[in-house]
Amino acid sequence: MPTTRADAEALDAADPLAHHRAAFYLPDGLVYLDGNSLGPVPIAAVSRLGQVIAHEWGEQLIRGWNDAGWIAMPRRIGDKIARLIGAQPGEVIVTDSTSVNLFKVLSASIKLHPHRRVILSERDNFPTDLYIAQGRTHLLDDGHALRLVDADELPAAIDGDTAVVMLTQVNYRTGRLYDMDSLTQAAHAHGALMLWDLAHSAGALPVNLTAAQADFAVGCGYKYLNGGPGAPAYLYVATRHQPHFSQPLSGWLGHASPFAFETEYRPAESIDRALSGTPPILSMSALEVGIESLLAADLQALRAKSLALTELFIHLVDERCADLGLRLLTPRDPAQRGSQVSLAHPEGYAVMQALIARDVIGDFRAPDILRFGLAPLYNRYVDVWDAVEALRDILATRAWDRPQWQRRAAVT
Amino acid sequence: MPTTRADAEALDAADPLAHHRAAFYLPDGLVYLDGNSLGPVPIAAVSRLGQVIAHEWGEQLIRGWNDAGWIAMPRRIGDKIARLIGAQPGEVIVTDSTSVNLFKVLSASIKLHPHRRVILSERDNFPTDLYIAQGRTHLLDDGHALRLVDADELPAAIDGDTAVVMLTQVNYRTGRLYDMDSLTQAAHAHGALMLWDLAHSAGALPVNLTAAQADFAVGCGYKYLNGGPGAPAYLYVATRHQPHFSQPLSGWLGHASPFAFETEYRPAESIDRALSGTPPILSMSALEVGIESLLAADLQALRAKSLALTELFIHLVDERCADLGLRLLTPRDPAQRGSQVSLAHPEGYAVMQALIARDVIGDFRAPDILRFGLAPLYNRYVDVWDAVEALRDILATRAWDRPQWQRRAAVT
Repeated sequence: MPTTRADAEALDAADPLAHHRAAFYLPDGLVYLDGNSLGPVPIAAVSRLGQVIAHEWGEQLIRGWNDAGWIAMPRRIGDKIARLIGAQPGEVIVTDSTSVNLFKVLSASIKLHPHRRVILSERDNFPTDLYIAQGRTHLLDDGHALRLVDADELPAAIDGDTAVVMLTQVNYRTGRLYDMDSLTQAAHAHGALMLWDLAHSAGALPVNLTAAQADFAVGCGYKYLNGGPGAPAYLYVATRHQPHFSQPLSGWLGHASPFAFETEYRPAESIDRALSGTPPILSMSALEVGIESLLAADLQALRAKSLALTELFIHLVDERCADLGLRLLTPRDPAQRGSQVSLAHPEGYAVMQALIARDVIGDFRAPDILRFGLAPLYNRYVDVWDAVEALRDILATRAWDRPQWQRRAAVT
Repeated sequence: MPTTRADAEALDAADPLAHHRAAFYLPDGLVYLDGNSLGPVPIAAVSRLGQVIAHEWGEQLIRGWNDAGWIAMPRRIGDKIARLIGAQPGEVIVTDSTSVNLFKVLSASIKLHPHRRVILSERDNFPTDLYIAQGRTHLLDDGHALRLVDADELPAAIDGDTAVVMLTQVNYRTGRLYDMDSLTQAAHAHGALMLWDLAHSAGALPVNLTAAQADFAVGCGYKYLNGGPGAPAYLYVATRHQPHFSQPLSGWLGHASPFAFETEYRPAESIDRALSGTPPILSMSALEVGIESLLAADLQALRAKSLALTELFIHLVDERCADLGLRLLTPRDPAQRGSQVSLAHPEGYAVMQALIARDVIGDFRAPDILRFGLAPLYNRYVDVWDAVEALRDILATRAWDRPQWQRRAAVT
């Protein structure tokens, strides 16, 4: 393990993925460890968006839907995402937000299991997943309910009344990675459907929905996929479920023949039936560039580097921040670790503000969590070194315990 | 009325709105009469998107949500749209697609009227409105139904079982403009709620939701608002309904305190409760520029020019295309006319293809409709002249009755 910054630099010099960093714009002097909230700009997105606006929208105007291939984007980009998450062509579509897509999948799951009353999830799942499940169950007032348990209780909580198990593969607070294969099997053993939220896993580690025999998945475009702020989300429906996938947001682009302008909705035969309204092409275009930047790297190599980065982060915190009030929330077992390191500190909010004032960007999650996302596509070993050093200094000098205008001065 | 192209040029020279055309990029030689499907590029959008990508996303990264004001965009842009549609600040929010927003409003309407079973609409309403209503009623299987009648039968069809009347203010096929005040009154007379789809009216003519006492409205960002392909849509909830507006797509941004990451959904006190997931910022940014371009013009003046353009179009078709098989679908009464002219022709599809081959862009709607949108912000009187001349020539020479590669040659 490195014991000096030079050691970290040597790791970067030997990193076979290091050249991918040049595909992104990262401001000078900034240690950006928040790619799990918003990935940076892929440099190719600048010219791509310019082209889409000036040439496609500008010159082709309405003809762009066919001539520039806009109408095909939800499927085309979906097929690219499929390669990141172990899905087959035609199983993934890009559309709407993660929240809206969750509503579609939960509704379809209940349609498939009309006599089972429970949506089962982790108590500490990302809130929008829970809120959407609450919206879906409150809408009907027909006995359906969201049941929440702690993660370790999930397998035992699945029973014959469980319609669907909904879980985020990497917990957003702790960075804990759940076992997709065994949990999907546990759901199937009771005849329940399994819905994975890949927001904090896809793009940072290999996901294999096919091998796990997952039923449904949703995911986010703006984190490890580097698709830009609020980038459209995606939705996976296993081929075997597509003929029976019935979702209530049945907008015109999900119709079997959208441009026939029929009065009655007839769902498309394909995953297109998961579409609703017209997709935002500018944001879709940026997302496609982000995904292409990711597809240029080997996913197994990304996972190896991700684990090396988080391992180094944990090691340096152990070595250099002992007795400074930090508590590691992320599992030490690499098999249970996503691509982030989460540390609890009683003054977590103020500490993160002090870090940001020193150009080390992570984020804070209530009540006391410092969260650092390590994106192996562009983060470096020296980023880890610099972040932990800044953290150590802030804690050791109680720099967080000062007005913000004094924090930067304290570094000098 | 003009009888030569020079007359049309003279009208353009005297047009007080003519200078607004310079705010848009319109390809040389193209007669673009499809702004009711996709508005052209506002030139300011090019630099604005460049700034959003390079400066906001690039430099500010995650901090852009606060520092660049992204989190405030749904409300900020909503308040700008409010000025176009006679709404008050805080009554309009930009989010999702028209389809998804219709689902929210229809669901909220049924919650407000749990004992009324009918969603009433026009048989010839835009299909996505009907499809979403079908998705909403099929979801529950609790006796709710979509009832469709012809437009003229609507007032008489409203009764005590009508929960909500849903109507697009300007019919997408015919361009007929419905009377917002009297239809809203008719709905209210029976205790029903009134939901307006403004897709084909907002931005082309003054709308006054407040004066009409409308309950809800939705609308589209990419037609007369010039927001770019698939631009986000908007949603209006009258202030008086906001405390009771309960919608099932209850994603995290609609929460009273999204960043508290609570387990239970609590709706925001404001129209923010109509939000669901994270908005696509690049597409939102282009939309804001489009709306600003529109706000630079006077809406009453736009309406006057719109009627002058459609009046000229109809006059020239009457005068120059008599006996060529066209049938006018758009009302001759200006009070019943939106901002488009629709003409039926038995070979409508082939005729529109021939027009497009001559760089006159309208669109075709099944089964036989040639549709020409007149956007008073950038369309000229000579555009009308040139379009009708091309149409006359194509019909008189049966140029539509040839393979596509011959059509352009036939002009020379």
